[in-house]
Amino acid sequence: MKAKGYMGKILRIDLSTRKIETEQLSDEVALKFIGGSGLGAKILYEETDKETDPLGSENPLIFAVGPVNGTKAFNSDRFDVVSKSPLTGVFAESNCGGYWGGKFKRCGYDVMVVKGRAESPVYINIDDNGVEIRDAACYWGRDTFEATEAFKNDLGNNVRAAVIGQAGESLVKYANIISDGKHGRATGRCGLGAVMGSKKLKAIVVNGTKKVGIDNEDGMTAIMKRLGPLMKDDPEALRIGGTTVGLDFNESIGNHPVRNWYQGNWKEGAKKITGMTMVEKRLVKRYHCGQCVINCGRVVKASGGPFDGQEIAGPEYETMSLLGSNCLVDDLDAVIKTNELCNRYGLDTISTGNCIGFAMEAFERGYITKNDADGLELSWGNAQAVIELVKMIGKRKAVGKLLGEGVRRAANELGGFAPEFALEVKGLEPPAHDPRAHFSVGLGLATSNRGACHLAAFTHDFEASGTSIGDLGSPPLTKRFITDGRAENVFRMQHLMSMLDSLTFCKFILFGNGLAVQPCIDYLNCITGWDFDPKEFFKTGERLFNLKRLYNNRLGISRKDDTLPQRMLYHKKEGTTNELPPLNLMLNEYYKLRGWDEFGIPTEEKLKELGLEEYIQGKRM
Amino acid sequence: MKAKGYMGKILRIDLSTRKIETEQLSDEVALKFIGGSGLGAKILYEETDKETDPLGSENPLIFAVGPVNGTKAFNSDRFDVVSKSPLTGVFAESNCGGYWGGKFKRCGYDVMVVKGRAESPVYINIDDNGVEIRDAACYWGRDTFEATEAFKNDLGNNVRAAVIGQAGESLVKYANIISDGKHGRATGRCGLGAVMGSKKLKAIVVNGTKKVGIDNEDGMTAIMKRLGPLMKDDPEALRIGGTTVGLDFNESIGNHPVRNWYQGNWKEGAKKITGMTMVEKRLVKRYHCGQCVINCGRVVKASGGPFDGQEIAGPEYETMSLLGSNCLVDDLDAVIKTNELCNRYGLDTISTGNCIGFAMEAFERGYITKNDADGLELSWGNAQAVIELVKMIGKRKAVGKLLGEGVRRAANELGGFAPEFALEVKGLEPPAHDPRAHFSVGLGLATSNRGACHLAAFTHDFEASGTSIGDLGSPPLTKRFITDGRAENVFRMQHLMSMLDSLTFCKFILFGNGLAVQPCIDYLNCITGWDFDPKEFFKTGERLFNLKRLYNNRLGISRKDDTLPQRMLYHKKEGTTNELPPLNLMLNEYYKLRGWDEFGIPTEEKLKELGLEEYIQGKRM
Repeated sequence: MKAKGYMGKILRIDLSTRKIETEQLSDEVALKFIGGSGLGAKILYEETDKETDPLGSENPLIFAVGPVNGTKAFNSDRFDVVSKSPLTGVFAESNCGGYWGGKFKRCGYDVMVVKGRAESPVYINIDDNGVEIRDAACYWGRDTFEATEAFKNDLGNNVRAAVIGQAGESLVKYANIISDGKHGRATGRCGLGAVMGSKKLKAIVVNGTKKVGIDNEDGMTAIMKRLGPLMKDDPEALRIGGTTVGLDFNESIGNHPVRNWYQGNWKEGAKKITGMTMVEKRLVKRYHCGQCVINCGRVVKASGGPFDGQEIAGPEYETMSLLGSNCLVDDLDAVIKTNELCNRYGLDTISTGNCIGFAMEAFERGYITKNDADGLELSWGNAQAVIELVKMIGKRKAVGKLLGEGVRRAANELGGFAPEFALEVKGLEPPAHDPRAHFSVGLGLATSNRGACHLAAFTHDFEASGTSIGDLGSPPLTKRFITDGRAENVFRMQHLMSMLDSLTFCKFILFGNGLAVQPCIDYLNCITGWDFDPKEFFKTGERLFNLKRLYNNRLGISRKDDTLPQRMLYHKKEGTTNELPPLNLMLNEYYKLRGWDEFGIPTEEKLKELGLEEYIQGKRM
Repeated sequence: MKAKGYMGKILRIDLSTRKIETEQLSDEVALKFIGGSGLGAKILYEETDKETDPLGSENPLIFAVGPVNGTKAFNSDRFDVVSKSPLTGVFAESNCGGYWGGKFKRCGYDVMVVKGRAESPVYINIDDNGVEIRDAACYWGRDTFEATEAFKNDLGNNVRAAVIGQAGESLVKYANIISDGKHGRATGRCGLGAVMGSKKLKAIVVNGTKKVGIDNEDGMTAIMKRLGPLMKDDPEALRIGGTTVGLDFNESIGNHPVRNWYQGNWKEGAKKITGMTMVEKRLVKRYHCGQCVINCGRVVKASGGPFDGQEIAGPEYETMSLLGSNCLVDDLDAVIKTNELCNRYGLDTISTGNCIGFAMEAFERGYITKNDADGLELSWGNAQAVIELVKMIGKRKAVGKLLGEGVRRAANELGGFAPEFALEVKGLEPPAHDPRAHFSVGLGLATSNRGACHLAAFTHDFEASGTSIGDLGSPPLTKRFITDGRAENVFRMQHLMSMLDSLTFCKFILFGNGLAVQPCIDYLNCITGWDFDPKEFFKTGERLFNLKRLYNNRLGISRKDDTLPQRMLYHKKEGTTNELPPLNLMLNEYYKLRGWDEFGIPTEEKLKELGLEEYIQGKRM
């Protein structure tokens, strides 16, 4: 291929037949679908159908990087995993930091598509010399940290491993994939670890050192020089407090779950687990992903319990909220512990926290008994119960087996009115951002292609801080409770995020580059030699967003699914927010802007405009 | 029993064992549950459970009258049928006029509970001399008019028969029961005719002449004297034009379905099928139910087609709207024909019209093909197609089999986005009143116990005319688009309607008695010798409404089911109404007023207040 920034190769591995093949990536495809989740979506669309079982051997597990990855560009060491989700049954993507993405790309590939199912546990080893499917008997059954350590011990300290824990092995529906072990990162959402487990694939270990070509090295240097000082100074709060820094602020405006999303004001509790408290009390050091100068990662020293004195990863904002306040737990050390356990088992902390909050409400309402929970009292704020429940989920024991299916299935199984307090969108449990505090978050969660996702529109941070992305092309995002014009912000942000997940950049690059889109476009052009202008850049993001939507449409997803959990639609959180998101009105405006019909299906005209003619599905889908 | 107005007996018939038994009705039960649908709800609650199959022999089919029935009270000749609905799976009630109710009561019974299943078709004959289960081989397979005629021929002109047609026999899910044949009335909603068919019960033929006791004859005479002139003069429009008289007005404000509830303005079309057009062009005479002086029934002369020149029942408002405008049919004679066909097959015209509107949209969108419909072009406004579809539904042929399952099941079966244009609440298709034109209709349809029902709150007529029920006890119902206070009107109207359906009065009595509640209370007290005041009267209505709710709660019905069809929640009907019902806000106010929890479950406190302690279901339902 001509475009720089790409390795030009798709790696295909079939674990059933042990066949390993390489395919060319064309310029045409790269230009149209970029990389990461965009390119992954294209492959997923074409290689699955309505009947594909997410845990069946036919479901492809797609690892993809983009053109900026493996270069020196700031915040560029990320990768995307795309598949059909076993948790939701619809489009799944999850983006992950660390160092795995760059090491994978430098093995010489832009994408890896894994299909089939090994007869016994295996791992895939990729380096400059080639690709091997290897026996993983001695790694299987170990937690993610142990397994990662073992790979480093066995294969050398330079390797990077993306591994699953016991949760992925035993097919917990929201098992994740952990890269870089102990102080690592996760492809948290949608249960991609269970897809990996279903293939009996314990890990993908990478160690590439090939060079990624750059079209305009001088241009790159100029961007880096311009952004360098900004990146180091600007996202100050994030650097000091990590992602958890805003927890008490979010709590104060109601943008935060307390007691399974029911309770409003919980101020004293929030302060005990907010970012600055963690910094003051437990911080050891900061850590970061490849090419990052922000350093939002945290190493903390655990105090008490099984990890007493150990230096482990500190909980991120989502984790602290969902395993903390959402269960009424205000014990910082307890959340540090549950986070550590989730990471070791390989469990998405957002889904886990939601499932435990749900379980506590179910316990209170008599749907789950002490007997179901091996004698545990699942009362609000019972930190020990949260810790034990994480273990039960990780091991699929007692009520943990049910909870490991996600709140939608668990609620349906429990029956009665349990679905009334099961919070999810399209089957995915919500992150710690609340439509009752930001109307735009409501529209974002309702329309994100993977379900309740805060990263596909990512409007909340800009609204809350009163800042906005200068050259986004829509009005500033500063008012939280307006309806008119809200759709346009979400619409444009979804395209920008689609691009960042395809390039693949960390979203925090926006904080560091003066809150502008243009530097991302400059990077793309300098690296590839293409000539994107903002219009084409956003149009490409729109193409990718629509392609994922079409994938879901084919599965029956439509307006009826673009909704929010009941509790977010009608229950006001006393003391923090008195608002309820006017979802229907926002959706009407949004569909119109999107060129989708009243059911939320892209029109033929829109698909032609986006160059997606070949994905037109006909009248009846 | 001591209370007058009751026969004091419950008739129990088991068609499997052919056992016929009589049970006493106690004063205590009568005072608490009144009669009609209230008493029916009590029996249904106690004699079915979660697992009861609506079409299984164990499902009781309950016919019940109330204390005013069989007396000379105006508008009192009605009866209620209660069961578990095969269409919706939840509480079913349907109220019917004519002359059957009075003749049944005068046989000496207040209630009849039919269980079991006959081996071959039977009918039940009840008169002053007793009850018999008789062979119905020679009536089975005949349409409702033919069967009714045959019963009259065979048993005498004085008998009154409640019969099912071919639709009930073949278990079409919204088959109805027709009383008094050709110029008769129907228990239209919820598929009670299918329950009857599942029992192989073709008809219940009654001919009682016993006297119903009255406690205070002088008081009765005084009420009659006072109301007589009012009843004859007041509901003038209804008397002149029948229920269809308001069709063009309703169309003008958007309170009316056009093109499967999608289209707004259709003025020229509406005028062609409105009540006054029918009066001017086709009216032969008026007819009425027992004890009625309003005469809202219509006999018309059919013109053209199979019924050319015949004098048949004219379509009611709901029928004209759903089989007419909802299918874009503006041909008066075609709707007269389809109405006649529905009555003969024994099909609910509201559900039938909704199913055909749905089928036409499904055809347009490619979900149903010409081939599925035996070569028919199911295009909008194709009157011949509507006529043929009614036949297919009645006979369960071709696509008619699917459509006879109701829109919810049909849409799920068709898959894809079909549920987006399937209009129903709790599985019941909506009547021709639109929440986009009256917010109170939205709250009423969403909370009615049998699903989308306009008669359980019945607010629209009062709002539209700017009149109100003087002594209802809540603010006047004159503004269509306010949210605040709307819940209180619906709340009180639901209690009044619960009482009317239990007494059992025709709801049009309100138009004729100066729009007041007190005359209904006076009737009740004069007949029974009880001493109801307005407070106790409304409290009793509240008890009955809550009992039905509890029945549904036990089946899993909660807030998630108190909703409206998608199309009514977000699609604005251009040219008629620009409003969308703020359902969530109204529901919040409504639950609070009801003393229901956030999921729509009556609290223990409320149930104790209503004397429903024994129906408290515990924390987990």
